[in-house]
Amino acid sequence: MTDAVRPAQLDPKIAARLKRDANGLMAAIAQQYDTGEVLMVAWMDDEALHRTLTTGRCTYWSRSRQEYWVKGETSGHLQYVKSVALDCDADAILVKVDQVGAACHTGDRTCFDADVLDAVVGERPDAVPAGQAAGPGRAAGQGQAG
Amino acid sequence: MTDAVRPAQLDPKIAARLKRDANGLMAAIAQQYDTGEVLMVAWMDDEALHRTLTTGRCTYWSRSRQEYWVKGETSGHLQYVKSVALDCDADAILVKVDQVGAACHTGDRTCFDADVLDAVVGERPDAVPAGQAAGPGRAAGQGQAG
Repeated sequence: MTDAVRPAQLDPKIAARLKRDANGLMAAIAQQYDTGEVLMVAWMDDEALHRTLTTGRCTYWSRSRQEYWVKGETSGHLQYVKSVALDCDADAILVKVDQVGAACHTGDRTCFDADVLDAVVGERPDAVPAGQAAGPGRAAGQGQAG
Repeated sequence: MTDAVRPAQLDPKIAARLKRDANGLMAAIAQQYDTGEVLMVAWMDDEALHRTLTTGRCTYWSRSRQEYWVKGETSGHLQYVKSVALDCDADAILVKVDQVGAACHTGDRTCFDADVLDAVVGERPDAVPAGQAAGPGRAAGQGQAG
């Protein structure tokens, strides 16, 4: 959307396809590589992505402090990088990590542990196995279901 | 950060603690509830969150079309809601879902399947079990490790 707003050493071929928000940022999701836990959401600019790709540890951009931040540098709760992927729009980043200790500054393992909302649970009306696309006829039926 | 920018039926007690971006939005991560796959990242405003909490299916706000969007309404690739949680900052939402078929508009199962970047892999220097916090002494050592 916008160019990088800070100098960055990111590979220009990657930088060219990023879609950044008005602040030059992309949402980054940290997921524990083996358990699949979604640990936290933070923000990366081009340079944070570059550092994450090249150092083996996650670096984010702190919107509140306006500075780079190596996750765990002060707390010891480091995130070791296992893989990094862009989404289909290149405006979100999934980093699979090995998280030492708590990912959340509150001491919780993940940032999503403490505030679970009441929600109506949906049930698929039939047993389409996960990963198998529903055909158009089935789709119409599901569109009418609860 | 900002008030809701569109009328919403969301429970005021939830709305009061949300931290929205300048466009009134929060990042929403959809995760397959049983396999743990991170399927996609999209955006919710207050009303999209309300509909997601009350209908059993995920509703997002489309930034490009500027309209609400029930995931799968046209494709049949619906997302049935299993749980919804806010993060510790209340500016990101994790929705665990049962995803019918492909989550990505490209036909891939997830939006993160196609663009995996080359990354240096990090290794924790010792065997702290996941979920167990490292003490300060350990943290200092890890801060110096690669």
